[in-house]
Amino acid sequence: MATSSTTAEDRLARLRIHLPDAPTPFGAYVPAVQTGNLLFLSGMLATSGRTATAGGVVGKDLDVKAGRKAAYTAALNALALTKQQLGSLNRVSHVVRLGVYVAATPEFTEHAKVADAASELLRDVFGEEMISSRLVLGVASLPLGSPVELEVILEVQP
Amino acid sequence: MATSSTTAEDRLARLRIHLPDAPTPFGAYVPAVQTGNLLFLSGMLATSGRTATAGGVVGKDLDVKAGRKAAYTAALNALALTKQQLGSLNRVSHVVRLGVYVAATPEFTEHAKVADAASELLRDVFGEEMISSRLVLGVASLPLGSPVELEVILEVQP
Amino acid sequence: MATSSTTAEDRLARLRIHLPDAPTPFGAYVPAVQTGNLLFLSGMLATSGRTATAGGVVGKDLDVKAGRKAAYTAALNALALTKQQLGSLNRVSHVVRLGVYVAATPEFTEHAKVADAASELLRDVFGEEMISSRLVLGVASLPLGSPVELEVILEVQP
Repeated sequence: MATSSTTAEDRLARLRIHLPDAPTPFGAYVPAVQTGNLLFLSGMLATSGRTATAGGVVGKDLDVKAGRKAAYTAALNALALTKQQLGSLNRVSHVVRLGVYVAATPEFTEHAKVADAASELLRDVFGEEMISSRLVLGVASLPLGSPVELEVILEVQP
Repeated sequence: MATSSTTAEDRLARLRIHLPDAPTPFGAYVPAVQTGNLLFLSGMLATSGRTATAGGVVGKDLDVKAGRKAAYTAALNALALTKQQLGSLNRVSHVVRLGVYVAATPEFTEHAKVADAASELLRDVFGEEMISSRLVLGVASLPLGSPVELEVILEVQP
Repeated sequence: MATSSTTAEDRLARLRIHLPDAPTPFGAYVPAVQTGNLLFLSGMLATSGRTATAGGVVGKDLDVKAGRKAAYTAALNALALTKQQLGSLNRVSHVVRLGVYVAATPEFTEHAKVADAASELLRDVFGEEMISSRLVLGVASLPLGSPVELEVILEVQP
């Protein structure tokens, strides 16, 4: 929970961030499941609607900067989905886990720089007190050719 | 929890699905751990006993159809393990998270079609009300050469 | 919880294991987040300070033995971080989930042997009663070029 009176919705407005429509599932799953006070989001890709906003493997088709842009887009989608599920981002009391899965070559080593674009957006919106634990992997490929996928587990208030 | 009176065990019987023996660990881990009302299953592979029922990378050695078959086999194993751990599938109150990890080439993009074979089986058995959140990744390779591995986190009733 | 009176700290001392300094984040995340009685550690690499102790892909640059050494190093880091976060390893009541992500070639199949080096260390320290569920994947590459990354979710006592 934020120790100051500034809320996530306040910060979002101040940063002039406009959230996209929340992604909808393209398969036999739901966007998110809550159990107790944990909300598990489905994997968030760098998509707009059903189309990847970038495609390829970081370290070959894309550089770190393009990977960061994809991570940012996926994080915007995660925020949009969270707002849709909870009504307000202010109901998030902690970002428990952020997984950042980067389609990367075997030689790539700068996964953390790509992942930081997602982490930084979530920190700027939810505040320093709610910063997540993190898991970053370089994977072979991702659905729709997206260069980045995010796993998000949130602690939410009733 | 199912809103109708039809149970997961009822559906399993009606679908004439015969569960295999639950997979046993081949290393220093246990098949599942429960904490509170969450049951974490160990990764479920496309195996029969200790042998992979298919081997290879989807998009190179295997096509989507073969990948779907492997995902279905892994999901059957997950059901068998769940029943072994809980005594009855009816004790599952929600499929919280389904992770589908597909051994895939860097160029592959149809991971969701492969994953749906697992999602659809779980939906058919547990019902629409319990459909999971989902995380789908294309990975480099999997234990025993299995083309698919599943991560399953279940919410269970006491 | 251990059924005998031997504690994790006792076992660590008896095994003459000296824990390294706990890894510090190299990005916009925190080392661990606790929610309820679950402690989610950030991904633990085979590092000493900010440097990977080994680099490369298992099955190409590294053999199983070198992969096991990396898994052991990452598990030592996980123990060090757990102790730093909780004050004492004795506060761990269960290792809920161990994820072992191995940078591996598409042809590699012996992921479980690599993963066992991490599982065995956690078993030797926390005891048979607390053995984890496990998820093992072969990935394309990992941050800093580490051959192994661990995901750890612990159940902790208040």
